[in-house]
Amino acid sequence: MSGLQRVLVANRGEIAVRIIRACHVAGVEAVAVYSDADEKSRWVRMADDAVHIGRSAAQKSYLDPDALLKAARTAEVDAVHPGYGFLSESGAFARAIEEAGLVFIGPRPAVLEKMGDKAAARSAAVSAGVPVVPGTDPIADPEDVPRLAAEIGFPLLLKAAAGGGGRGIRPVRTVEELLDVLPTAQAEARSAFGDPAIYLERAVPQARHVEVQVLADEHGDVVHLFERDCSVQRRRQKLIEEAPAPGLREETRQAITSAAVRLAEHVGYRGAGTVEFLVDGEGGFYFIEMNARVQVEHPITEMITGVDVVAEQLRIAGGERLSLDQGSIERRGAAVELRINAEDPERDFAPTPGEISVLRLPGGPGVRVDTGITQGDRISPFYDSLIAKLICWGEDREQAYARARQALSEFHVEGVASTAGLHRELTSDPELTAGPVHTTWLEQRHG
Amino acid sequence: MSGLQRVLVANRGEIAVRIIRACHVAGVEAVAVYSDADEKSRWVRMADDAVHIGRSAAQKSYLDPDALLKAARTAEVDAVHPGYGFLSESGAFARAIEEAGLVFIGPRPAVLEKMGDKAAARSAAVSAGVPVVPGTDPIADPEDVPRLAAEIGFPLLLKAAAGGGGRGIRPVRTVEELLDVLPTAQAEARSAFGDPAIYLERAVPQARHVEVQVLADEHGDVVHLFERDCSVQRRRQKLIEEAPAPGLREETRQAITSAAVRLAEHVGYRGAGTVEFLVDGEGGFYFIEMNARVQVEHPITEMITGVDVVAEQLRIAGGERLSLDQGSIERRGAAVELRINAEDPERDFAPTPGEISVLRLPGGPGVRVDTGITQGDRISPFYDSLIAKLICWGEDREQAYARARQALSEFHVEGVASTAGLHRELTSDPELTAGPVHTTWLEQRHG
Repeated sequence: MSGLQRVLVANRGEIAVRIIRACHVAGVEAVAVYSDADEKSRWVRMADDAVHIGRSAAQKSYLDPDALLKAARTAEVDAVHPGYGFLSESGAFARAIEEAGLVFIGPRPAVLEKMGDKAAARSAAVSAGVPVVPGTDPIADPEDVPRLAAEIGFPLLLKAAAGGGGRGIRPVRTVEELLDVLPTAQAEARSAFGDPAIYLERAVPQARHVEVQVLADEHGDVVHLFERDCSVQRRRQKLIEEAPAPGLREETRQAITSAAVRLAEHVGYRGAGTVEFLVDGEGGFYFIEMNARVQVEHPITEMITGVDVVAEQLRIAGGERLSLDQGSIERRGAAVELRINAEDPERDFAPTPGEISVLRLPGGPGVRVDTGITQGDRISPFYDSLIAKLICWGEDREQAYARARQALSEFHVEGVASTAGLHRELTSDPELTAGPVHTTWLEQRHG
Repeated sequence: MSGLQRVLVANRGEIAVRIIRACHVAGVEAVAVYSDADEKSRWVRMADDAVHIGRSAAQKSYLDPDALLKAARTAEVDAVHPGYGFLSESGAFARAIEEAGLVFIGPRPAVLEKMGDKAAARSAAVSAGVPVVPGTDPIADPEDVPRLAAEIGFPLLLKAAAGGGGRGIRPVRTVEELLDVLPTAQAEARSAFGDPAIYLERAVPQARHVEVQVLADEHGDVVHLFERDCSVQRRRQKLIEEAPAPGLREETRQAITSAAVRLAEHVGYRGAGTVEFLVDGEGGFYFIEMNARVQVEHPITEMITGVDVVAEQLRIAGGERLSLDQGSIERRGAAVELRINAEDPERDFAPTPGEISVLRLPGGPGVRVDTGITQGDRISPFYDSLIAKLICWGEDREQAYARARQALSEFHVEGVASTAGLHRELTSDPELTAGPVHTTWLEQRHG
């Protein structure tokens, strides 16, 4: 099915398992990589071959471009799939892969770099006629701040130009507060992202996070796979995602999906990507950023459209055309994803690494589980604390949530604390199940 | 969603788990039953309540109508779901349930009895204008056999009128052979089914087994959910099923699904049922029998249509209308089900009961697992030897089979021998994946 023969899976955990499955289903060999901590991991057992890439600390392995490039050469692959997180959005890594004569499974390096720079991405959106939240360019002279802030209006957000994933953002309510925190924000931006640049953006109150999945091939074809609502967040980390976005007006859906396709076309996008928006109560929507990679929550889109996003990534990287055109992509039903982490909600969601002594996973109609572990494996303190994603489809949103509650009742883990109990609460919360909710809902709900 | 409040699940194993899930998703309480051997079973743990019904031998528990009726009274349920097998097609059991003032989740007792009698079912098909295999009524006078056989033509099948599930059938090639085996066949029919009645039927060579799922409510609405192909059989037991039937001409699909709906309407059917046909190479099709219950292979229909068959059973039993009309039911992609049994293919498929010391189940996109066990449970010698059903969906048949092969590579069981290895072979067999195959394919393939 794919023009690729052998792929290095330059990632770990559930997304490594996901990519290996997609490779095998497409008839492509998959080579895993692993750090010291991951030597006996599930994805290493599943892969056709595996290469040790370094020590447990991510900087010495999954974040080390040279180690991954060396692994790609050793394993004689023809392509590298970066997954999500780690180096997946590094233009420098993508360029190094291409310079080594290999295929990077993602956008062209220059496009990655553009979409990774908030200001450049925002300019691209404006040029493509995609609405953005009123805001400024990165601020050169702090003297300009009061005037610029007044133009935008309060409350507003102070954002690190090189930030992402919800990090490097501070809400501010007054010009005094803004001037007060500006130097600290710049210093933090420099230390966290290597770049002190800061810009201002209007806060959209009661906003929902709605994002559009797009696929683009080398031949200029771009399609969207409809949208996802990821408004259930804690400290800007998504806990529950669903597709389609509940209660979204059909005209908003059409406008937002068209805008996402337009942006992808405008920047010459290639591969799978997600265009993230804020949607306000009036159906207004504003571009936030583009995630230039496969996302954690891609399975809910797969559940409602039947399209295998990772299989399409492999096709595109192999130079083939997309397997589908926009007219043939239809939605069916609704899907919810619950991210269950090894974290203790009683102790401010502190990670609880340790051995998973018992792991019972749910099954049955409409239930999909994506996990990187099996019973007896360890949740490592070195990486994210995801235990499993429970993805539940239903004929409608009500059935999807009912199946999610049933799946949670079957889910059982021993050895670490988990957020399953919180998910049990949330999926029974009438405010959420009546939906939609806003991005601040969860934090306000729990104080 | 359902008018029912509390259901007795009068079955065991994966179908008990399946029904409990459907009850919970519909907001209905589920009460499990268990024999001595099943006290610590998965479905008992999942149910809201559980009632002990007797000893391990099925005759003393799952096949004991009085024990089940008593359990229903004790548990104060308002309905009984019989699952498949055991008493699911017993008109007497259904009648006893209704006489106790409870709802039997299935057809009316008289319809169950009619469809359970091969000859009566065949007459109903003829009256409904549904083609049947040329054959006779039950034979009263053995003297008539040579004349009747000559009218039908050889090869033909000698069948027990009260048989079913592929049992009580003998192929015969000549009139001499027929006269020779007739007395034995009658004696066996009496001992196996309590009825010596025998009839003759033309053998359809190179036939495929194609069946149509129907749903009928109390309000006279009948719909079909398309067809399944169950031609991969060993000793008439299905090993692999798929939906839709590969290579079936669209006109045949329309004719066969219409015929199934016509039969269900004609007999006043209620609930979920399956109309089974033989299909020959020319698109001719012949009614075999109607299975008046949910079937083992119903999940592949759920995967391609998105309709929850067991949820519809609950709706119908609650007196509600079907949640769908024929025009709204669409197929998407293809699905394959693999029944993995605790049997040893090296020892003529002898059951291998024992403790499942390790059980690793597959997951990921398009993969559904239905099982009644968890790691550490025992496969009991008292019942069927099913370990798990792996149900794999794909955008097309090729992807469904590729995902099935991947799922099998992830499936791992220790403690008992299993048929997983045979399934690995079969799902890679070019004759099967090129499809379709005939009902005799598997036995001929293995000699």
